Amino acid sequence: MNAQELPVTQGVSPVSNIRITAFKWVPPVAQGLVKDLRVRWALEEAGLPYTEKLLELGEHNSAAHRAVQPFGQVPVYEEDGLTLFESGSIVMHIARKSPVLMPTDEAGRARMLTWIFAALNSVEPHVQNLTTIDLFFPDEEWAKQRRAGAENLAKLRLDGVGASLEGRDYLDGQFTAGDLVMTTVLRLLRHTSLVKDMPVLAAYQSRCEARPAFARALTAQLAHFERNQPKAA
Amino acid sequence: MNAQELPVTQGVSPVSNIRITAFKWVPPVAQGLVKDLRVRWALEEAGLPYTEKLLELGEHNSAAHRAVQPFGQVPVYEEDGLTLFESGSIVMHIARKSPVLMPTDEAGRARMLTWIFAALNSVEPHVQNLTTIDLFFPDEEWAKQRRAGAENLAKLRLDGVGASLEGRDYLDGQFTAGDLVMTTVLRLLRHTSLVKDMPVLAAYQSRCEARPAFARALTAQLAHFERNQPKAA
Repeated sequence: MNAQELPVTQGVSPVSNIRITAFKWVPPVAQGLVKDLRVRWALEEAGLPYTEKLLELGEHNSAAHRAVQPFGQVPVYEEDGLTLFESGSIVMHIARKSPVLMPTDEAGRARMLTWIFAALNSVEPHVQNLTTIDLFFPDEEWAKQRRAGAENLAKLRLDGVGASLEGRDYLDGQFTAGDLVMTTVLRLLRHTSLVKDMPVLAAYQSRCEARPAFARALTAQLAHFERNQPKAA
Repeated sequence: MNAQELPVTQGVSPVSNIRITAFKWVPPVAQGLVKDLRVRWALEEAGLPYTEKLLELGEHNSAAHRAVQPFGQVPVYEEDGLTLFESGSIVMHIARKSPVLMPTDEAGRARMLTWIFAALNSVEPHVQNLTTIDLFFPDEEWAKQRRAGAENLAKLRLDGVGASLEGRDYLDGQFTAGDLVMTTVLRLLRHTSLVKDMPVLAAYQSRCEARPAFARALTAQLAHFERNQPKAA
């Protein structure tokens, strides 16, 4: 086994036919938020073992990586000759393998996919804009001027999610991959009080994160960052 | 038939079991870009008739509309008791009905969904940020300072799409719903020269927009805006 292809401790075999590509290390600000978390979580919910390919610093921009991920991002998912990117697509692919993640009726499946798209196209872009301002451009003049407007747009989308959760534990009755992806979007706001300020959302995030599969996935991502921490100069 | 529920001229029956919700009128800056275009196009490719519910000005924020679309947007899709929102999810739902939109093998279907997510989660957010600056906040100081950075981020994602199209006509060999959604994202840049400046992307957009189903969908959306233009004050 190549040193880059480490077996994961839980539910995983070094001979699994599923491999994900993730980062060997990222700065603390991104730890626990990198998007391979979605895929690890889905695989843990489905009970599917996987191996990993870990990218060295800068390797995400290599021609070899861009040949399988045109935007130079993670994760990539490989299974028996099939190569996928985009965490939403990968989670959907895994969800089809497990009733824990996806209802078995066609209507339920369509509604689950609606929530995955809601998380990634209606909520995350606004959340990401706020996060980008706060974490990457806090001292820029444009960011200071834009922050209130960006926060307001993010809040409007959170209001929509919160309204959809009134009186229910999950977005479509039972836990699905839609909740999994939405939870990972809410996590991007951990440096703010936006989720905490909306009790229905905070309880929802806690409920989803209390799942053992989430804990295993988070532990698996963080273990690499701990192990591969750069030496102090 | 309610005046709000108009039959569409092409491939459509007033008794169709599929109904989409769209706007009765939007300002010229948004005409031809509203996201029901994706759904109309997919329905036209699949040869599926549909009816329409058209929202009056401001009605998208009504409690009745937010009950089916928590973010107050369009489109909404209704079919035999199933209600969906999020254009990506609706297009996927329609694609499952037609080999014109979706390969019949599982791997091809997964790759198609990857391109839909790429369009909506990796490309559109950056394109939308640039569009928001140019069309809604052109005179704001923050927007002037941020524009070059926002344009650069959009360009990086367009580069990834362009690289994926080198030597091929469509993102995954044959036309799929992934190309349909990606084309509607590229259209958001019509006020810029970004697509025109990348011949591979410009040719791709033209190739997709040359499909008769696209022309029928665009005509159907624009017809309402023409018919319902507000009277000059």
